[in-house]
Amino acid sequence: MSRPYNFSAGPATLPEVVLEQVREEFLDWQGGGSSVLEVSHRGAAFQELAQAAERDLRTLLALPEDFAVLFLQGGARGQFAAVPMNLLGEAGTGAGTGTGSSADYLHSGYWAASAIKEARRYCEPHIIEACSQRGTLAGLVDLSDWQPSDDAAYVHYTANETIGGLQFVKAPHTGADPLTVPLVADMSSDFLTRSVDWSRLGAVYACAQKNLGPAGLTVVLVRRGLFGRARIETPSVLHYQLAAESASMQNTPPVFAWYFCAVMLRWMLEQGGLMALEQSSQRKSAKLYAALDQSDFYDNAVHPDSRSCTSVPFTLAATELEADFLSEATAAGLLNLNGHRSVGGLRACIYNGLPEKGVDALVDFMENFEQRRG
Amino acid sequence: MSRPYNFSAGPATLPEVVLEQVREEFLDWQGGGSSVLEVSHRGAAFQELAQAAERDLRTLLALPEDFAVLFLQGGARGQFAAVPMNLLGEAGTGAGTGTGSSADYLHSGYWAASAIKEARRYCEPHIIEACSQRGTLAGLVDLSDWQPSDDAAYVHYTANETIGGLQFVKAPHTGADPLTVPLVADMSSDFLTRSVDWSRLGAVYACAQKNLGPAGLTVVLVRRGLFGRARIETPSVLHYQLAAESASMQNTPPVFAWYFCAVMLRWMLEQGGLMALEQSSQRKSAKLYAALDQSDFYDNAVHPDSRSCTSVPFTLAATELEADFLSEATAAGLLNLNGHRSVGGLRACIYNGLPEKGVDALVDFMENFEQRRG
Repeated sequence: MSRPYNFSAGPATLPEVVLEQVREEFLDWQGGGSSVLEVSHRGAAFQELAQAAERDLRTLLALPEDFAVLFLQGGARGQFAAVPMNLLGEAGTGAGTGTGSSADYLHSGYWAASAIKEARRYCEPHIIEACSQRGTLAGLVDLSDWQPSDDAAYVHYTANETIGGLQFVKAPHTGADPLTVPLVADMSSDFLTRSVDWSRLGAVYACAQKNLGPAGLTVVLVRRGLFGRARIETPSVLHYQLAAESASMQNTPPVFAWYFCAVMLRWMLEQGGLMALEQSSQRKSAKLYAALDQSDFYDNAVHPDSRSCTSVPFTLAATELEADFLSEATAAGLLNLNGHRSVGGLRACIYNGLPEKGVDALVDFMENFEQRRG
Repeated sequence: MSRPYNFSAGPATLPEVVLEQVREEFLDWQGGGSSVLEVSHRGAAFQELAQAAERDLRTLLALPEDFAVLFLQGGARGQFAAVPMNLLGEAGTGAGTGTGSSADYLHSGYWAASAIKEARRYCEPHIIEACSQRGTLAGLVDLSDWQPSDDAAYVHYTANETIGGLQFVKAPHTGADPLTVPLVADMSSDFLTRSVDWSRLGAVYACAQKNLGPAGLTVVLVRRGLFGRARIETPSVLHYQLAAESASMQNTPPVFAWYFCAVMLRWMLEQGGLMALEQSSQRKSAKLYAALDQSDFYDNAVHPDSRSCTSVPFTLAATELEADFLSEATAAGLLNLNGHRSVGGLRACIYNGLPEKGVDALVDFMENFEQRRG
């Protein structure tokens, strides 16, 4: 059987060549006779791997030197807590320009709402509606004239909403200095699929299981100038400064996930780096949106200026055919095209690990299904 | 080359047969055409695996029904924060019998001290010295008459100190009801190597990378009757009740580590369950201590009543030979016998994944080295 194409939102498909390399060296990593699962994270071999991973990530992202690179556990949801704990400052002590008692959160959908809910453990966040309905289409609002609240210690936004299928084409312009009122981005679902304007950003986080590797690893990029604001009750394992000072090895890191990411980062460089990944992402999503737009049988309800390049939700005009669509797609080797359980419908996640041929196969299947059932 | 024996403190050696099974099904798990790294944690296949893992763990441990089983991220160090955040209660609200403003921590060495340091983020813990010097030997003190402090919300102890090589043969007797002043155990380094008297315990945690699988997964067992004490600022990813209510799937779990543990738990059952693992652990450690005790060339400085069955630190009378010992051992396929970086010396960690033949090979090597160099 040829390998199926997996459109899962994460854990997501991974490049076959990377999986094969990992399998190949699974029992004996670097000739030491041990699996990479068994080596000490403090040994020379793993230390070298960790350094190479950071170097490759910095190269791919063209990351400015003053950002620390952290490899943590806990997923994006862990960061929903870590961001306020690390950046709000002690209540009333005046981190940022304001009192440090609050933060601005752009509300763009399900994941922004999840981040807001968690932030309420630490402050009363200000909610800025970032999404509006334009006729039948949802879209992100223009925030070019927007200003952060006076007491905002930081501004948080969700770069890509995997359920709504909305993506900020550019980081919101806050007009604030990133070391005073930092802009913080949840890039979990579009990390390493597009270039980033670092000048606007203070911190970025992304869980690995969409574009970067397996679940169980979360990358955090944070300007060192933001250290010193962490609240006392910040757990060490979520504490940015402590993680940076220990090269993310205060305690045993998720060795296998980190190793896998290192192999994946090397693969990304071999593909041609971020520009090549971005071009591939643009090509894949353009093909899929073209197929959706040229048909009345399929629909994507996002305005073209806010459409995601990695998460493409869609519906059938004949919703009663969705179950058939899914089962026939699965039989055709196109897996996990169901929408998120909170909204239903259909969704294709087309992350870095999904080859362009997978999109071609999906588009072919969609046309064929429409001809037969439309 | 035959497979070396790896005495690393963690990530630690894993059973060859488990590694081989994982390698075998790495590219195509359960015939679905995807790697286990690529499957959705919410899909039927992974849900079934997660349930089987919990069932097998409960069987192995004879765990009472009122304990929830949580599969979390963040390691034992994450739990150093999670325990006070979940169990202290809001300051001054009176969790436990006392005010909930403090907790008792038995101080038995490096890891207990690390837990205490983290607890200081949340309260002023009471330190109970649990270790004393008896002549040239270190040992754990008799706490049979000890009583928890009036304002202790819980009592924390470290079941096995991997650096000092000290192990509580029995859980400390607090005399308190486990739902009032729960006893909390860090069992990271002796989990699943011995039977447990659950009647004394309120909560237990263990990182996986010693006895249970790869790094990146932490098992927490906690009585459901202890829910409701979590402080508001407890991050969701460390929140026991939220984790229990979502079957440890509030967010994407570390799928691969969880899967690997599931395979490992099945292997443990096939070995004969916890009694067989305990007997193996006892046999392995008895052989190694016998070799240390019958020689003046090697020394272990722990009183026999407090010796660890899994972490055996030792020294050479001629300390200048340690480097030679380590390099010759490595050449003989006996890896990672160096002591912890904080104390130096030598150490053999003999967790579940280390076969008895590995201890035999180490004892042979030690005798041979002594004959040649002693």
